[in-house]
Amino acid sequence: MKTTYYFLIIALILSATMDAQNKRLRDYGIEIGVLKTGKLNAITDVEGVTVGHETIIEGDNVRTGVTAIIPHQGNVFQNKVPAAIYIGNGFGKLAGYSQVKELGNIETPIILTNTLSVAPGMEGLISYTLNQEENKNVSSVNSVVGETNDGWLNDIRGRHVTEQHILNAIANAKSGSVEEGNVGAGTGTICFGYKGGIGTSSRVLPESLGGYTVGVLVQTNFGGVLEINGVPIAKELQKYPYRDKILNDADGSCMIVVMTNAPLNARNLERIAKRAMIGLGKTGGIASNGSGDYVIAVSTANENLIPYQSKSMFNEKKEVRNDDMSPLFLATIESTEEAILNSLFAAKTITGRDGHAVNSLPIDKVLELMHKYNKVKN
Amino acid sequence: MKTTYYFLIIALILSATMDAQNKRLRDYGIEIGVLKTGKLNAITDVEGVTVGHETIIEGDNVRTGVTAIIPHQGNVFQNKVPAAIYIGNGFGKLAGYSQVKELGNIETPIILTNTLSVAPGMEGLISYTLNQEENKNVSSVNSVVGETNDGWLNDIRGRHVTEQHILNAIANAKSGSVEEGNVGAGTGTICFGYKGGIGTSSRVLPESLGGYTVGVLVQTNFGGVLEINGVPIAKELQKYPYRDKILNDADGSCMIVVMTNAPLNARNLERIAKRAMIGLGKTGGIASNGSGDYVIAVSTANENLIPYQSKSMFNEKKEVRNDDMSPLFLATIESTEEAILNSLFAAKTITGRDGHAVNSLPIDKVLELMHKYNKVKN
Amino acid sequence: MKTTYYFLIIALILSATMDAQNKRLRDYGIEIGVLKTGKLNAITDVEGVTVGHETIIEGDNVRTGVTAIIPHQGNVFQNKVPAAIYIGNGFGKLAGYSQVKELGNIETPIILTNTLSVAPGMEGLISYTLNQEENKNVSSVNSVVGETNDGWLNDIRGRHVTEQHILNAIANAKSGSVEEGNVGAGTGTICFGYKGGIGTSSRVLPESLGGYTVGVLVQTNFGGVLEINGVPIAKELQKYPYRDKILNDADGSCMIVVMTNAPLNARNLERIAKRAMIGLGKTGGIASNGSGDYVIAVSTANENLIPYQSKSMFNEKKEVRNDDMSPLFLATIESTEEAILNSLFAAKTITGRDGHAVNSLPIDKVLELMHKYNKVKN
Amino acid sequence: MKTTYYFLIIALILSATMDAQNKRLRDYGIEIGVLKTGKLNAITDVEGVTVGHETIIEGDNVRTGVTAIIPHQGNVFQNKVPAAIYIGNGFGKLAGYSQVKELGNIETPIILTNTLSVAPGMEGLISYTLNQEENKNVSSVNSVVGETNDGWLNDIRGRHVTEQHILNAIANAKSGSVEEGNVGAGTGTICFGYKGGIGTSSRVLPESLGGYTVGVLVQTNFGGVLEINGVPIAKELQKYPYRDKILNDADGSCMIVVMTNAPLNARNLERIAKRAMIGLGKTGGIASNGSGDYVIAVSTANENLIPYQSKSMFNEKKEVRNDDMSPLFLATIESTEEAILNSLFAAKTITGRDGHAVNSLPIDKVLELMHKYNKVKN
Repeated sequence: MKTTYYFLIIALILSATMDAQNKRLRDYGIEIGVLKTGKLNAITDVEGVTVGHETIIEGDNVRTGVTAIIPHQGNVFQNKVPAAIYIGNGFGKLAGYSQVKELGNIETPIILTNTLSVAPGMEGLISYTLNQEENKNVSSVNSVVGETNDGWLNDIRGRHVTEQHILNAIANAKSGSVEEGNVGAGTGTICFGYKGGIGTSSRVLPESLGGYTVGVLVQTNFGGVLEINGVPIAKELQKYPYRDKILNDADGSCMIVVMTNAPLNARNLERIAKRAMIGLGKTGGIASNGSGDYVIAVSTANENLIPYQSKSMFNEKKEVRNDDMSPLFLATIESTEEAILNSLFAAKTITGRDGHAVNSLPIDKVLELMHKYNKVKN
Repeated sequence: MKTTYYFLIIALILSATMDAQNKRLRDYGIEIGVLKTGKLNAITDVEGVTVGHETIIEGDNVRTGVTAIIPHQGNVFQNKVPAAIYIGNGFGKLAGYSQVKELGNIETPIILTNTLSVAPGMEGLISYTLNQEENKNVSSVNSVVGETNDGWLNDIRGRHVTEQHILNAIANAKSGSVEEGNVGAGTGTICFGYKGGIGTSSRVLPESLGGYTVGVLVQTNFGGVLEINGVPIAKELQKYPYRDKILNDADGSCMIVVMTNAPLNARNLERIAKRAMIGLGKTGGIASNGSGDYVIAVSTANENLIPYQSKSMFNEKKEVRNDDMSPLFLATIESTEEAILNSLFAAKTITGRDGHAVNSLPIDKVLELMHKYNKVKN
Repeated sequence: MKTTYYFLIIALILSATMDAQNKRLRDYGIEIGVLKTGKLNAITDVEGVTVGHETIIEGDNVRTGVTAIIPHQGNVFQNKVPAAIYIGNGFGKLAGYSQVKELGNIETPIILTNTLSVAPGMEGLISYTLNQEENKNVSSVNSVVGETNDGWLNDIRGRHVTEQHILNAIANAKSGSVEEGNVGAGTGTICFGYKGGIGTSSRVLPESLGGYTVGVLVQTNFGGVLEINGVPIAKELQKYPYRDKILNDADGSCMIVVMTNAPLNARNLERIAKRAMIGLGKTGGIASNGSGDYVIAVSTANENLIPYQSKSMFNEKKEVRNDDMSPLFLATIESTEEAILNSLFAAKTITGRDGHAVNSLPIDKVLELMHKYNKVKN
Repeated sequence: MKTTYYFLIIALILSATMDAQNKRLRDYGIEIGVLKTGKLNAITDVEGVTVGHETIIEGDNVRTGVTAIIPHQGNVFQNKVPAAIYIGNGFGKLAGYSQVKELGNIETPIILTNTLSVAPGMEGLISYTLNQEENKNVSSVNSVVGETNDGWLNDIRGRHVTEQHILNAIANAKSGSVEEGNVGAGTGTICFGYKGGIGTSSRVLPESLGGYTVGVLVQTNFGGVLEINGVPIAKELQKYPYRDKILNDADGSCMIVVMTNAPLNARNLERIAKRAMIGLGKTGGIASNGSGDYVIAVSTANENLIPYQSKSMFNEKKEVRNDDMSPLFLATIESTEEAILNSLFAAKTITGRDGHAVNSLPIDKVLELMHKYNKVKN
């Protein structure tokens, strides 16, 4: 009996914790879009994709980190993935753009971190790649590293991210649920004036439209006029920039990573990447002048992996026709919108550099507004 | 007393008519965004900009037309306007793209018409330009002609638009209010499965942010999952594509023209143009595979007009700094969203080719939903 | 004996004629590059490709025309070809760019004509396409029409090209040798201050590099500092712009069409297209400000044709790997350089609008210089 | 008398040394193009531009280095330079592209190094920038770092370039003559199968065309079919790839930096950058699949420097009109061609990693061929 009692207590505590901390947007009865989510509602719903975080919190001033997204569990350099990067707004330091554009593929895990740590990001990916036994003769590696600027909460000028942190994030990568909020590359980011961070979501198309999965992971650090599922949060709370003067929290960036098991070529992946910006826009983002908004889109379909070396001078491919792309566009838009909102719901109030504090989204107040606008499913 | 009575009757009729036909989105108490509109809430709020329609309705099967947007009232070829075109999705036949990209300017009025009538659009613009006395030695004209496909309602294969229609549209151009809905290039277009057409809107920035005006005009002919100011109309009405199969009304295009009196160079105009796609996305558009979504952005600022010929080898310019662009981005997004919705509210049920009928947006039902979601200002 | 005598006379006349008029660059012992040409040294060496000219010479002032290049002999709309267009310099009015970029294919023959006749070019291609029985329900056609400005020799403002001329050019299309010089779209063009026009050339890769054929056709109407196979013709003749002031003959455009039977996707076709500009540069072209230099690249490989409609949601493709592209780049550069020079060697002195005369390349003088620089193979 | 004798000996030795080692292309009577060079025939002819090398030769296997190009002698972050980057072929790891594209400026010195050392390049530029007193609050730096792969001669996998090497290269920067050949980022590079390296050249336009200077610096590490001033060196020596199979020395990259004092906006700088690839093509380069060919173009004109912060929301600019750009295009092409050839003439035979040796251009043999083709001015 006592045991039961303890279990009950634990269950209650867990439940309370989950209420306070771990509920995602959908757990509140808020549904984005019209398509179904994947099982985890996460980028890891795309088979083979893993995500790893390395959160770096040290002393009062260091609030940063690294997130690694790995497109498949083989050797990515030896079996490259078709890919594209779309530049929503290019005020950013992303590494790897031009080679992805030219060759239509990505050959490393994708690293997200802070603005002044793209270099260790590259060092980490290069070390990771050179150290794989199969790659022992490789002398050219195109690292893909994205970033946003966490300099308000983090001592970014101190450059606390090291190559080892990158390697750790990759080593931490796993399938299953993805931790969201103040974690990894989202540790110190700010979104619409609230604490942002990592968020993820996914969609699965009906079988009749191909049955493919689209998964999105975001690092949110941008501003605008927040809307949640069409509810004008920022307007209601009178919290947005661009009224009399441009407020500080207007600016900032969003890194968006899209994975899909649909067999797509780089051209159609670029089209998918472009649509993610609509998802961002639906949360109230405007891709402000100072934003580095990049969308990295990858097709993980096994049959189209591109061998580093080949005896044949041909690749044989099976690709979704242009005519059948639109449902994938919609899936990308919905996943992006929801991933961003998930990052806001998961992120927690934090204090960092020079005592700067950033509050989490005021969920109670938000839910009240969601009810006011009849947007909570009972 | 009798007179009073008559006046009352007239007032009631006018009111009813206005209710039924001429009310714009805002007249219903629906407000998009956070910025103020211009006086007319139209692209013509940008000083010097005029708009002309030529509506072509003939017999049972011809439902098409032409809309001309003129950036200033001088000779546009002799005094070119800084401009950019952003390709949201390029399944379209727009004329003039590459020269605008290369040189950063536009040298003709902008013409909108149907997909198979870009050629007469060009002929009209060339004739218009060659025939201006000052241009008598000109032998090269870069016509800018956009289009959407009105082939469901219109006998598009019959190619009923002529060069003369283009010249008429230009001749019809005027300042003041802009007619919306089934008019000009919007005569036969369809939007979210309802009758679309021409729509317009504008925003004026606070003086502290520059005080500039941004005006948008759209030709709406696209699909997606309709939302009005965040209210999920399509979901509520269970009317959207991409459930089991791709429905016909998923596809289609949107032409978007943005004018501003802010002094901007072509690079920053391209950034503005890019943001318009977010406005489209907020109405539920997804830039589907078959869409020709193009945004043409023009700065009309007098001081930066580009003379065709000059004794100097320099242009002297005053341009908004990158850092001050963001409010213009927001203004563009809001104007585009509202212009699209205005087109839907203005458009009327129509029957055309082979008896095809397209209904107007069911405004009563929509208003009911807007109320359900508490989005109507009383 | 008498008969023999006559034959001898005829042979001599033919030989003289050939000397004066029909010799191509290689017939003079001048060899461009290191790769082998195809059998005809023409774009028609690519199997299935045909070329048709419509030359329009009327009275004293009309010197223009149309050239059609057809990528395969099926219905091009029903079986589209993978394609890309690269904009070397965009001061031109080419139709069709954005859809080719978005979808990665071309669905009509390619038309070349003059700057103010792109519209009839489109009308012709639309009529051609709509009138094909299989296309009876088609209501959207992306015409690809390129142009250069022949306004010095031709009454370009008179707009003498009609839709019928376009249809004639298509109807005239044939395989085999391609007529060069003052013909079709090259009738009134000027190149390096001499009469330009149509030129063509091809290369065949060694079997070990794939054995593919690359064919190029150009419409030359541009300026710069002429070099022929590395010999500084313009410098020797002191005939080039940009010394004290910009001369008129500096400007102008070059349309370049590249066909290959190598199975390539649109991304790699764009890379090929980009290389053609190096071929142009090797003749002394600089892609001047006023030039509309466009390269249209098409893969004709049967196995990759893209059906307009399909029951499958996939295309299956076999494509040359990135790693094996370089020989195709070299073939494109060499073919383009030689095609341009062939246009100059084939073009004849002509008088046109307002008595303007343009001389052909002074072949004797040029050969003298080629000898001076030891560039003639004996 | 004895002294005289010694002087004579020294003079003879110096002269011989110069003959053998320090003569540039023009010293042999070989002249590229038709425009005049600047005084130094170097990128440093553009006032304010300085160049610094850090050559890293250690033991048997380390043959690499760093070259820094600084656009002006103020604080580059506080006074940014209008700039553009053109991607000739994007198989490279250049850092900084997207922000330059978006904002139209560069805010750091430009660093060139090897493929796996872009990260220390960024670290160096970030440290350099953060450490400037005026920049003490800066938390976002867009480093521009280019690279080519020196892995044949250099133990590139050992990653021997450090942040300190970058800072040294910047500290070494000076005006005046620029060292060429096996120096800085050119220490271990290979060009057309010979030792490549750093090269530079410049052109000055006639006063009537603006009188502006264009300077180019290259890091040559690419292949193709070598031509020198139109003389077919590779063909004569039967040394080129793409005959039977693709040879190793076909591939590789070229970094090209263009500086000009002409007041240009980013759009016209991108056009200039594009033309540099024609200069590369004239040496026989083909921008092979594996090449990372990037052109970075900068306008140093004082009046157009872009302040990091400003009280005004405007920049006032004076810019060369489109119509007057062509001479700058020609100057860029000629400077690039000559800079590449200068790198070949300056580079020396070297032995590096694993005993790999790469010979310098066989100058005697080349001169013989230049004479054969009458390309040496007496």
